[in-house]
Amino acid sequence: MCKDMNSEIRNILEGVRDGNISVDDALLRIKESPFEDIDYAKVDLHRKYRQGCAEVIYGEGKTGAQIKGIVGSMRKNGQESILITRLRGDSFEDISDLDNIRYYKEARIAICGSIPEPDGIGKIVVATAGTSDIPVAEEAAVTAEFLGNEVVRLFDIGVSGLHRMLSRLDDIMSASVIIAIAGMEGALASVIGGLADCPVIAVPTSVGYGASFEGLTALLAMLNSCASGVSVVNIDNGFGAGYVANLINHTR
Amino acid sequence: MCKDMNSEIRNILEGVRDGNISVDDALLRIKESPFEDIDYAKVDLHRKYRQGCAEVIYGEGKTGAQIKGIVGSMRKNGQESILITRLRGDSFEDISDLDNIRYYKEARIAICGSIPEPDGIGKIVVATAGTSDIPVAEEAAVTAEFLGNEVVRLFDIGVSGLHRMLSRLDDIMSASVIIAIAGMEGALASVIGGLADCPVIAVPTSVGYGASFEGLTALLAMLNSCASGVSVVNIDNGFGAGYVANLINHTR
Amino acid sequence: MCKDMNSEIRNILEGVRDGNISVDDALLRIKESPFEDIDYAKVDLHRKYRQGCAEVIYGEGKTGAQIKGIVGSMRKNGQESILITRLRGDSFEDISDLDNIRYYKEARIAICGSIPEPDGIGKIVVATAGTSDIPVAEEAAVTAEFLGNEVVRLFDIGVSGLHRMLSRLDDIMSASVIIAIAGMEGALASVIGGLADCPVIAVPTSVGYGASFEGLTALLAMLNSCASGVSVVNIDNGFGAGYVANLINHTR
Amino acid sequence: MCKDMNSEIRNILEGVRDGNISVDDALLRIKESPFEDIDYAKVDLHRKYRQGCAEVIYGEGKTGAQIKGIVGSMRKNGQESILITRLRGDSFEDISDLDNIRYYKEARIAICGSIPEPDGIGKIVVATAGTSDIPVAEEAAVTAEFLGNEVVRLFDIGVSGLHRMLSRLDDIMSASVIIAIAGMEGALASVIGGLADCPVIAVPTSVGYGASFEGLTALLAMLNSCASGVSVVNIDNGFGAGYVANLINHTR
Amino acid sequence: MCKDMNSEIRNILEGVRDGNISVDDALLRIKESPFEDIDYAKVDLHRKYRQGCAEVIYGEGKTGAQIKGIVGSMRKNGQESILITRLRGDSFEDISDLDNIRYYKEARIAICGSIPEPDGIGKIVVATAGTSDIPVAEEAAVTAEFLGNEVVRLFDIGVSGLHRMLSRLDDIMSASVIIAIAGMEGALASVIGGLADCPVIAVPTSVGYGASFEGLTALLAMLNSCASGVSVVNIDNGFGAGYVANLINHTR
Amino acid sequence: MCKDMNSEIRNILEGVRDGNISVDDALLRIKESPFEDIDYAKVDLHRKYRQGCAEVIYGEGKTGAQIKGIVGSMRKNGQESILITRLRGDSFEDISDLDNIRYYKEARIAICGSIPEPDGIGKIVVATAGTSDIPVAEEAAVTAEFLGNEVVRLFDIGVSGLHRMLSRLDDIMSASVIIAIAGMEGALASVIGGLADCPVIAVPTSVGYGASFEGLTALLAMLNSCASGVSVVNIDNGFGAGYVANLINHTR
Amino acid sequence: MCKDMNSEIRNILEGVRDGNISVDDALLRIKESPFEDIDYAKVDLHRKYRQGCAEVIYGEGKTGAQIKGIVGSMRKNGQESILITRLRGDSFEDISDLDNIRYYKEARIAICGSIPEPDGIGKIVVATAGTSDIPVAEEAAVTAEFLGNEVVRLFDIGVSGLHRMLSRLDDIMSASVIIAIAGMEGALASVIGGLADCPVIAVPTSVGYGASFEGLTALLAMLNSCASGVSVVNIDNGFGAGYVANLINHTR
Amino acid sequence: MCKDMNSEIRNILEGVRDGNISVDDALLRIKESPFEDIDYAKVDLHRKYRQGCAEVIYGEGKTGAQIKGIVGSMRKNGQESILITRLRGDSFEDISDLDNIRYYKEARIAICGSIPEPDGIGKIVVATAGTSDIPVAEEAAVTAEFLGNEVVRLFDIGVSGLHRMLSRLDDIMSASVIIAIAGMEGALASVIGGLADCPVIAVPTSVGYGASFEGLTALLAMLNSCASGVSVVNIDNGFGAGYVANLINHTR
Repeated sequence: MCKDMNSEIRNILEGVRDGNISVDDALLRIKESPFEDIDYAKVDLHRKYRQGCAEVIYGEGKTGAQIKGIVGSMRKNGQESILITRLRGDSFEDISDLDNIRYYKEARIAICGSIPEPDGIGKIVVATAGTSDIPVAEEAAVTAEFLGNEVVRLFDIGVSGLHRMLSRLDDIMSASVIIAIAGMEGALASVIGGLADCPVIAVPTSVGYGASFEGLTALLAMLNSCASGVSVVNIDNGFGAGYVANLINHTR
Repeated sequence: MCKDMNSEIRNILEGVRDGNISVDDALLRIKESPFEDIDYAKVDLHRKYRQGCAEVIYGEGKTGAQIKGIVGSMRKNGQESILITRLRGDSFEDISDLDNIRYYKEARIAICGSIPEPDGIGKIVVATAGTSDIPVAEEAAVTAEFLGNEVVRLFDIGVSGLHRMLSRLDDIMSASVIIAIAGMEGALASVIGGLADCPVIAVPTSVGYGASFEGLTALLAMLNSCASGVSVVNIDNGFGAGYVANLINHTR
Repeated sequence: MCKDMNSEIRNILEGVRDGNISVDDALLRIKESPFEDIDYAKVDLHRKYRQGCAEVIYGEGKTGAQIKGIVGSMRKNGQESILITRLRGDSFEDISDLDNIRYYKEARIAICGSIPEPDGIGKIVVATAGTSDIPVAEEAAVTAEFLGNEVVRLFDIGVSGLHRMLSRLDDIMSASVIIAIAGMEGALASVIGGLADCPVIAVPTSVGYGASFEGLTALLAMLNSCASGVSVVNIDNGFGAGYVANLINHTR
Repeated sequence: MCKDMNSEIRNILEGVRDGNISVDDALLRIKESPFEDIDYAKVDLHRKYRQGCAEVIYGEGKTGAQIKGIVGSMRKNGQESILITRLRGDSFEDISDLDNIRYYKEARIAICGSIPEPDGIGKIVVATAGTSDIPVAEEAAVTAEFLGNEVVRLFDIGVSGLHRMLSRLDDIMSASVIIAIAGMEGALASVIGGLADCPVIAVPTSVGYGASFEGLTALLAMLNSCASGVSVVNIDNGFGAGYVANLINHTR
Repeated sequence: MCKDMNSEIRNILEGVRDGNISVDDALLRIKESPFEDIDYAKVDLHRKYRQGCAEVIYGEGKTGAQIKGIVGSMRKNGQESILITRLRGDSFEDISDLDNIRYYKEARIAICGSIPEPDGIGKIVVATAGTSDIPVAEEAAVTAEFLGNEVVRLFDIGVSGLHRMLSRLDDIMSASVIIAIAGMEGALASVIGGLADCPVIAVPTSVGYGASFEGLTALLAMLNSCASGVSVVNIDNGFGAGYVANLINHTR
Repeated sequence: MCKDMNSEIRNILEGVRDGNISVDDALLRIKESPFEDIDYAKVDLHRKYRQGCAEVIYGEGKTGAQIKGIVGSMRKNGQESILITRLRGDSFEDISDLDNIRYYKEARIAICGSIPEPDGIGKIVVATAGTSDIPVAEEAAVTAEFLGNEVVRLFDIGVSGLHRMLSRLDDIMSASVIIAIAGMEGALASVIGGLADCPVIAVPTSVGYGASFEGLTALLAMLNSCASGVSVVNIDNGFGAGYVANLINHTR
Repeated sequence: MCKDMNSEIRNILEGVRDGNISVDDALLRIKESPFEDIDYAKVDLHRKYRQGCAEVIYGEGKTGAQIKGIVGSMRKNGQESILITRLRGDSFEDISDLDNIRYYKEARIAICGSIPEPDGIGKIVVATAGTSDIPVAEEAAVTAEFLGNEVVRLFDIGVSGLHRMLSRLDDIMSASVIIAIAGMEGALASVIGGLADCPVIAVPTSVGYGASFEGLTALLAMLNSCASGVSVVNIDNGFGAGYVANLINHTR
Repeated sequence: MCKDMNSEIRNILEGVRDGNISVDDALLRIKESPFEDIDYAKVDLHRKYRQGCAEVIYGEGKTGAQIKGIVGSMRKNGQESILITRLRGDSFEDISDLDNIRYYKEARIAICGSIPEPDGIGKIVVATAGTSDIPVAEEAAVTAEFLGNEVVRLFDIGVSGLHRMLSRLDDIMSASVIIAIAGMEGALASVIGGLADCPVIAVPTSVGYGASFEGLTALLAMLNSCASGVSVVNIDNGFGAGYVANLINHTR
C-alpha cells in the first residue's frame, strides 16, 4: 500500500471521527481506494513527466466503428493523444475522418492528437539489420516518439557489412538506449551490445525462412548474446521495445 | 568513428605536418586508433560516472590459480574492484588469501576491493517468486551493488500469495528498475509489470520440474507478458539482469 | 462389471433355469449386456441428476444437411436438448429452420431445445484475461449453462491490471469452480489459483503472436502454475473446460 | 473485496465514530485488512469443511533442521497436521524424532499429526498404467487422504491389458473423482475418461525412454484426450493431482 | 551381389571365351548388370506373387496432362494396373477419360485397370478412432486392396467409447495385420495393440487442434505405445501403411 | 465378443437350463468371461504356433530378488522359457543361480529355459549402421531368436561405406523381415528400404551427439523415409523391433 | 587492418608531411579508409579472378519498379552482370523489358547481362533426391553458373533407387564440389558424402509432409551425416549452396 | 561406374578372350570390382595428393586395448599416420607406449606417426568466439594439420569485442578457408562471413547455458547467417570442420 493511499484513508477516518463523513460513505470510499490506488498510481506517474495524457489502443481485430467509439470515449475523459497500433491501411480508411489523426504506414500506427516535445534523458537509437525489419523498427520508433523521445533511425546496418555499422559509431556511442532489430540469426544485438555503453533492447523479427522458424532463431540468439547489457522482447514486438526504451529514457 | 578519435588523428596529422612526428610513427599510431577507439570508448564512459574502475571475471571453469593470475594482472593495471561470478565455494577456498576479498555464498560471487557508494538515479528492486530463486536474485543484487546501485530485496512474493506482493507495493511503485525473477510459470513478471511504472527486467529461472523444461516455460511466458515494460534475459542470468539494471539506473 | 449388470444377468439366468427364456435368447441378451453396460451406464448416470436428456454434436466440418439429419435422428430417440459446437455462422444459416434452435454467435454454438434449470452445487465462474479470449470463454460458458449450471462471467480481468481482478474478489471467492482463460503468458490461472479455494480449470488460448506459439506458451505456463488447485485442458478447448466444470459442479 | 472485510471495516469505522478507536490504530488495521482478507479467506474456508488445520511443506532442498524449524513454528500456531512432500528417505532420518510423525516411503511424504476422517462427497480413485507410476500415485493418494478423502488404489491397469481395467469397472463407475496416472503414451486417461462419469485428473509421468521425452509425450497425449471430462496437471505432479481431486471432492 | 547376376556374368564370360561376344559388347553388358540387378530384383519379386504388374504414381503437384503421359508410357511398357495417390477431385476430372479408370473420392486415389484378387495370407483390418480419420484410412485400404489384399474396415471405434471397439473383437482377433489410424492422443494403437496378436501399423493423423500439433502428439504417443507389436509410419501416411501391411500380408 | 466366448456362455446357459449349474455359479463364470476372453485369447493364439510357452520380464529397476520371485511364479504356472530384458550385468549376478539361465551381455538380456527351434516363414535380418548400434541390435536379435526365428546379423554396414552394404545384397534380398538400426542421421533405413522387398522395421538409436538429440534426428528421418515399406519403433527399442519382426515372420 | 590500407595511409601521411595535403583533407580521407577497406576488399578480390563484375539482388518482396531502379543504378556503376533471386514469374513480367535479361523459371532467377566463361578449379555437381527438389537445385545451379562455374545436374537420384545414383558414379567421383539437395529424410547427403572425395554442400528442402516439419528433419539428418566432408546450409537455400560451392571451386 | 573400373574389366575380358584367365577366375574378379571400386577410389584419390597414408580412429568408447589392436592392424597394412579423435587423457595413458605417438590434450587427439608437410592451396584460419570454444577449435586445427594444411589460430575474437577481430583482419582476408567456432548466439560466423572472401565453415559449440540449449541456438543462428559463404557442421564437431576445410583447401 503506497503513501498516497495512506493519507487518503487518514482523511476519511478523520472525517468519520469528526462526524463529517458517515460510516456508510466512508465504507464505500475505503472499499474503492486500494484498487483505485493500484490503477491510477501508474497513470499519475505517467502524468508527472509527460504533460499530456496518452493512451494506447491495440488495433488488431477491432473494427473502425469500435476504434472510433473507444477514441471518442477517451477524448471525453480528457485524453488528448492516442496511439493506435497494429492498424491495417484499410482499417485506417474507416477512421480517417477523426479529428487530428495521422497514419504511419510502415509502422501500421495511427496517432490522434499531437506528439509531445521530447523530454527524455537522451536519444533512442532504433537500428535494423536489414530493410525487411523496417516495419517493426517504425513501430518501435513511432511509439517512442509518441511517448516523448528523440529517435535516431539506423536502418540496414546488419553485421554482414560491418562497415555500415561502424560508420554510424558516433550515433551508437552517444545513445541513451538502443533498440536492435534483426531477423535471421539476430547477430546485430550482440555486435551493438559489444560496442555500446547503454541498455540495448533486442527485438527478434520473423524475417527469414527455413530454420529461422519465424523469428525463434533470432529470439534464442539474442537471449544468448555474448555482450552484456542486452535484454529481449517478443518476436516482432516493436511497440514493446519502444515502450521499454521510453521507460528507460525517463528513468527517475 | 567517434569524436575523440577525430581529434586524436588530427593531433597526429598536425604533428606530421609540423615535422614533430615521423611518417612511420604516425602510421603505427593511426593503425591502432580505430580499434583502440572501439575498445576503450566503453571503458572511458564507464569511468565517467563511476570513480573506481571495475572489471568482471567469469569464474566458471577457471582454476584458483588462473583467477589469481587474472586478478593480479588487473590490479597491476589499476583495477581496484573486481567482480568474480559463478564461483563455487570450493573454488573460493583457493583464492581466499587474496587481499581484500569477500565471498557472497548464495550469489556465488567474490568481490575484490571495495564496493562503491551508490550513485544511480534511484533504487533497483530485486524480486523473486519463491525461495528457490534466491541464488539467481543474489547474483543480480550483488552485481548491481558492485556496479554502484542501491538494491532493495523482495524475496518470495510469488503470485500464488498475492497479499505478499501487495504488502510491498510501496517498494514496487518507487523503484527505478525492477528485476523480476521466477521459475515455473514466471507470472511474477507480468503482475509486477502491471503494477510498476519503471522498466522490468525479467529473469526466468530453472526452478521447477516436468513441463517447466528447466526454465524454458518461464522464459516463454515472460516474453509474452501482457504487461508493457518488460524485457527478458537468459535463464538463470542474474548477472546479466544486474548489469542491464545498472545501465538503466545510470542512463544518461 | 458394475452392479446393474449383475442383477440383469441374474434375471436372465433365473429365466433360463425356470424355463422362461430359451438358451438362444439368453445368449443374445447376455452378449449385448457388457457393452450396453459400458455404453449406457454413463448416460443413465447423467439422467439421474439432469432431468432432460442432452447430447453434443461437434459441428466443425459437417454440412447443414448432415447436422439436420443427426438432430432429426436424436429427436426421434427422445433427445430434447442438443448442443452443437464449433458451428460457423454461415453453417447455422443452413439449419436455422430447425424447431426451437438458437445460435450463440461468440460461442459458435447452437442449441436445440431448452436449457435446463441450473441444478449444480454452486456457481461456475468463467474468467478471461482479455477481450480476445471471449470466444473461448463463451464456448465454455454456454456449454456449462446447457449442462445445467449457473455461470458468472468475469471478462477482461488480466493480471496486468490487477485491480480489475481484485474488484471481483467476491465472485472469485464464492465460486464452486472457476474456468480461467488466457493466452499470451497465461498468468491469470496462477493468480486466480492463488486467490480461490475451489478447483480452477485453466484454458490456454491461441491469443498472442511470436513466442506465444499459438497457445503453447500459455499451455506450458498453466501446467507449471505455482498455485495448487489448477488443472489444464487443451488450447482453445472451451467446450472441454465447460464440460469438466459441469462434472465438478455435479460431483456426487 | 469480499463480505467479511466489509463488516470488519464497518466495525472499525464505527469504533472511530464512537471514539473507541484512534485514527492511527484504525489506519493501521485498515491498511492491513485487504491483504489479510486475501490471505486468510482461503484458510478460513478450508477450516469450514475440515475441522483440523492442515498445512503443506515442500521438502525438496530443505535440510532436516529447516523442516524441524518450520514444523515447530506451525505447531505453535496451532497446526495439528502437517504434510511434507518430496522428502527423501535420508532426509526423513533427520526429522524422525518429531512427535507423531510417519513416513510414506513410496510417496516420499511424511505426515505430522493425525489424518482426518474422510469427509468428502465420495471416493477418489487413483489409477496407474504401470508399476513404475506408483510413486507418483502414492504421492497423490497420500495427499488426498491427508486432506480428508477416501482413496481407492487401482494400480497397473494400463490399456495394453484391457481386462485388468475392465475388471475394476465398478470402482471406476462409482468414483467421485479419478486420478489417472501414466507415462509412455498416456492412453490410460482417455480410456478411463471414456468409461467414467466423473472428473478425471490426468497425471503424465516421466516413465518411459526415447521419444517419451521424460513425460512430454504423455502430457501432450493427455491434453488431446478424445474423452471429455479430462484435465491435466504437470508431469509427475502427484501432489497437485491429489490437491485438485480433494477440492473437487469437497465442492460446495 | 546376388545369385542371378553371377550366372548372367558367367554367361557373358563364356561367350567371350568362346568368341561369341566381343570384348566391347561384354564390357557394356557387365557395366550395366550390377545396377540392373539392384533395380529389377525388386520388380521381379513383386511379379512372383502378384500376377499383374502394378505401379504407383504420386499425384500431388502433377497436372492432368503429366499424369496422362506417365500412364500412357506405363501402359506401353505392359503395366496393367496403376495406382495414383493424392489426386484431388478436380485433377481427376482432367484424366477421367482414360480407359478403365475409377476414382475413390475419400481416398483421393484413382486406379487404372483392374484390382487383383486378394492373395495375401489373411485379412488386413483398417481401424480408425474417429470419422475425421477416414480419408487416411481409405488411402490405406484402397492401397492394400490394389496390391492384392482383403480389407476389413472398422471406422470410428475410438477408445472414448470402448464398447464400439469391443463389439468388433472378432475382427480384431482374426486379422493378419491391423492398421490403427488416429489423431488427437492416438490411444487407439495402444488399445488395439494390447488386444491383437498380429503386427499393428499405427498411422498418426493431423486430426485435432491446439496441442495436437498437427499430428505430432499422436505420432509420439504411438511410438511410446505400452503394447508390443506396434510400429509407426509418418503422419497421414495412409499409403505407406497400406504398403507395409501388404508386404506383411505377403511375407514369404 | 469373439466366437469362443459364445460357445462357452452357451455351455453355461445349457448347464443352467439342465439344472447342472446353479444361477450363482453361472453368474460368476459369465461375469468373468468377457475379460478372460480378452486376456487369454492372445496367449492361446501364441500357443498355437509356438509349442513352448514364453513370457517377458522388463528387468530395468527390478531387484534380483524381485526377478527371482517372478520367474519362480511363472515356472510354477508352466512357463518354460522366460526372456528378461534391460538387465544390467550386476543385476544378472544376483540371479545367475537360477536353473538353466544364460546372459547375453551385449543384448542386456537373460533367458531362462531353452530357445525354440525357428519356425518362422523366413529369416529376419538385423542390420546396423555402426558398431555403437550393436547393443540395440543384439536386443532385437536375441528377442527374435527367443520367439522362434532365424536371425542373420549384418552389423556396421552404414551408408557412408556403401560397398559394405552392397556386398551383403544376397542377405538383404532374401530376408522375410529386416530390422534396420541406426543413430545419427538414420539413412540406413532408407537405403535398405529401397533395396529390399520385405517389411523393414527401423530402430533409431541414441548414438550420436549434438544435433542428433539423443536419437530424435534418426527417429524423424526414419519416419520420413523416401522408401516405401518402412515402419518405425521407439528410440533404442530393440525388443520392440524384435517382437514386431517375429509377429511378421509368423503372419497367419 | 590489411596491407592495402597501410600503403594508402602512408601516402596520405607523406602528402601531409610534404605539404601536399591539408590536415583537414587528410583527416577526412583517413576517417573513411578503414571502413572502405572492409567494404571494398571483398569486391576487389572478386574482381581479381572474375573479369566481369557481378552483383546479386534478392527479389522477394521487391516491386518491379524497385528492381528496375536498383539494376539501373548498378549498371551506371559499371556492373555488367546482375543476378536477381527469388523472383516470381509475374514479377519478372514487370521487368522483362530491361536490356539483355533472361528468366530461369524453375530457378526463379533472372540474370541481366552475360554469364562468364567457367573459370573454376573443376566441376560443380548439383544432385537432387527427387523431382520436387528441382527448383532449389536450379537456384543453386544457375547461381553457380552465373558466378563462373561449370555445373553438372544429376536430378532424381534419391537413395530409394540406389542404382540411379550408382549409374552416375563417374560424375560424382570427378566433381570438385557436390551440392546434395533432398527433403524428407535427407539421406542423399550421407550416401554421396560416403562416395565422393570432395566437399559436399547439403541443402535440406521443405519437400515432404507430416513429420518432415517443412525441412527440419532433413536439416537435422544432414547435420548428423555419418559421412565426413558434409556441411549444411539453411532449408531451401539453393542460392547459398551455389555461392559456397563457387567459393570452394575458386579456392585460392 | 568410373573409368578405372572400365579398363580393369576390359583387361579381364581380354584375358578371358585370349585364354589367359579362366571364366571362374574372371567371375570372381569381376564380382569384387564394383565394390572395390567404390571403396578404394576414395582412398586412391587421397593418396594422389598426400604422399603418406592416413586414417582416422574415433576413440570415444573404445578401450586402450581395442585402439592398440586397430593401430597395429593399420600399421601392418602400411598406414604410417593415424589420427585418434575424442580420446580422453586417461585413455591415452593406456596407449602411450605405442611407437611414435603424441597426445594433443586440448584437442583430445592422439597422432601416431608424422604429420605431413602442408600441401594445401592456402591457409586454414581457425577462429573462436571465446576461450571455452578452444577444445573444439583444437580438434579442428589438429585434424587439419594432420591432413596436410597450414593452420592459423585466432582464438577469443568474439563479436562483443569487435576490435579483437578487426585487429586480425589481415589473417581473415588472406585465408583460403575459415573455421568459425562459437557457442551462445554464434554471431562470429556471420561477422567473419561478412568480412571474408573464402568459404566459412561454422561450428556451433555447446558453450553457454539456459536458452543456449547445449548448442542448438548457435546452430540455428549459424544456419541463418545473413552473410553468404557460410555452411555449418554439427554441434562441437571440430573434426568434421577440419575435414571439410581440408577438402576445400585441396580442391582439385
